[in-house]
Amino acid sequence: MSNLSPDLPAAEVFVEIPFHDVDLMGVAWHGHYAKYCEIARCALLDKFSYNYKEMKESGYAWPVIELKLRYAHPARLGQKIRIKAMLREYELHLKIDYLIADAETDERLSKGHTIQVPVDMRTQKMLFGAPPILYEKLGIGT
Amino acid sequence: MSNLSPDLPAAEVFVEIPFHDVDLMGVAWHGHYAKYCEIARCALLDKFSYNYKEMKESGYAWPVIELKLRYAHPARLGQKIRIKAMLREYELHLKIDYLIADAETDERLSKGHTIQVPVDMRTQKMLFGAPPILYEKLGIGT
Amino acid sequence: MSNLSPDLPAAEVFVEIPFHDVDLMGVAWHGHYAKYCEIARCALLDKFSYNYKEMKESGYAWPVIELKLRYAHPARLGQKIRIKAMLREYELHLKIDYLIADAETDERLSKGHTIQVPVDMRTQKMLFGAPPILYEKLGIGT
Amino acid sequence: MSNLSPDLPAAEVFVEIPFHDVDLMGVAWHGHYAKYCEIARCALLDKFSYNYKEMKESGYAWPVIELKLRYAHPARLGQKIRIKAMLREYELHLKIDYLIADAETDERLSKGHTIQVPVDMRTQKMLFGAPPILYEKLGIGT
Repeated sequence: MSNLSPDLPAAEVFVEIPFHDVDLMGVAWHGHYAKYCEIARCALLDKFSYNYKEMKESGYAWPVIELKLRYAHPARLGQKIRIKAMLREYELHLKIDYLIADAETDERLSKGHTIQVPVDMRTQKMLFGAPPILYEKLGIGT
Repeated sequence: MSNLSPDLPAAEVFVEIPFHDVDLMGVAWHGHYAKYCEIARCALLDKFSYNYKEMKESGYAWPVIELKLRYAHPARLGQKIRIKAMLREYELHLKIDYLIADAETDERLSKGHTIQVPVDMRTQKMLFGAPPILYEKLGIGT
Repeated sequence: MSNLSPDLPAAEVFVEIPFHDVDLMGVAWHGHYAKYCEIARCALLDKFSYNYKEMKESGYAWPVIELKLRYAHPARLGQKIRIKAMLREYELHLKIDYLIADAETDERLSKGHTIQVPVDMRTQKMLFGAPPILYEKLGIGT
Repeated sequence: MSNLSPDLPAAEVFVEIPFHDVDLMGVAWHGHYAKYCEIARCALLDKFSYNYKEMKESGYAWPVIELKLRYAHPARLGQKIRIKAMLREYELHLKIDYLIADAETDERLSKGHTIQVPVDMRTQKMLFGAPPILYEKLGIGT
């Protein structure tokens, strides 16, 4: 561990709440936020070239083992939201935090996180610690 | 064509419209019917042991190349619907018709069809005509 | 009918196939195209200011009574697609055609249409013919 | 607080993982568990007659403000899972725990919880504490 923690990558995406995501209350159904976060997460993973395709090529799958979402304010039909995904932990697993805000007013709407663990695709076993390829992709010395 | 057409298989499934499928109008969003039909289609394919797994083992994929749905009456939150899938054509492609009705009153709600074509998974080419395995599964002489 | 048919509006949107829309075959599951078309349809309806909100204010709902999709080529994970929605008929109902193509190569992937009918929200009865508000929104004399 | 805690209701539902819920890895995409939990939650709310319809009649909405899911083992295409929803807290909010297991082997697959808060539908304000109607529905003295 070091005082000079690396600058971990982040990414932002924008979603306009579509009609098919809106429930009887006129707001995006809470379960759809898993999709919004995934769109942001994939943009984040693309930033360090370790998205689904490169994960597979590297021999590791990274299943999501935890999803947590806190909803403070609903998102309404047609509302433009900004989802920011920020890599927070990478040594044992990939922990990504999400902030969801109104794209115009910046009002904080929701937040959440996901945790993904490395699984060796040949053995189907979970690794205790991220494989070297992740450090390499992040440009961080192990 | 023959007067002795084989008895083609059919299957029925039941779905209770869940909250997350209901739109602002209080009815199942029209796009979700592709899911309801798929649940019925898979039950139908199971009837002659040629569902996704067996298709893959047989070396053929059967992508849906056409989906048509006609909505006469909406299905409301919590409404129990019955989806009947009926195999209609199998020589060139799999054409399956769907009837969607209220499970209690039998009121006809919607109908539709899908068409799937055989694709050789090695060559990724479409076949002109169903492969022998389909006839075998259906118990029909070619 | 006239030789001088009005220039009917059209709209285009772009979608990048997300991980959660991709099936076991590695392509966008066929049912998700109802969402892609809806995103394009809403962009089209916005063009003449008659989207969900304005429909409701006008006292009419416009449920989709028919959806048809033809899939020629699959769309893969991460592929950018362009969905063009084109208003085709408006006198009896709203018929909208859709063309789905690869956003970069312009390769035609799929096409489809939807039909929506006007329903008086007070009486819940279907109208035989579009209400004057639609002509007004389209800038077309009745 | 009392040693005589009431027997809080629970409910179980069964889901067979459909093709359209399965991702490229051959397992139910993690975001779909929000749907599975909702189906179980609605069965639970029905047990004490306080599901969406009765909530609305009572003048209170109960938006989900927190969703947490922990995934231990994936659920595969066609796998039958059992989702048990258990009411855990009701004084300040509705906290419901979920256990997801293989329906045949009882192997524990995933778990999670949701928290819903009462919102007065006229004022759109959150209540600090459950309204009397919830106690009444649960058959618990306030």
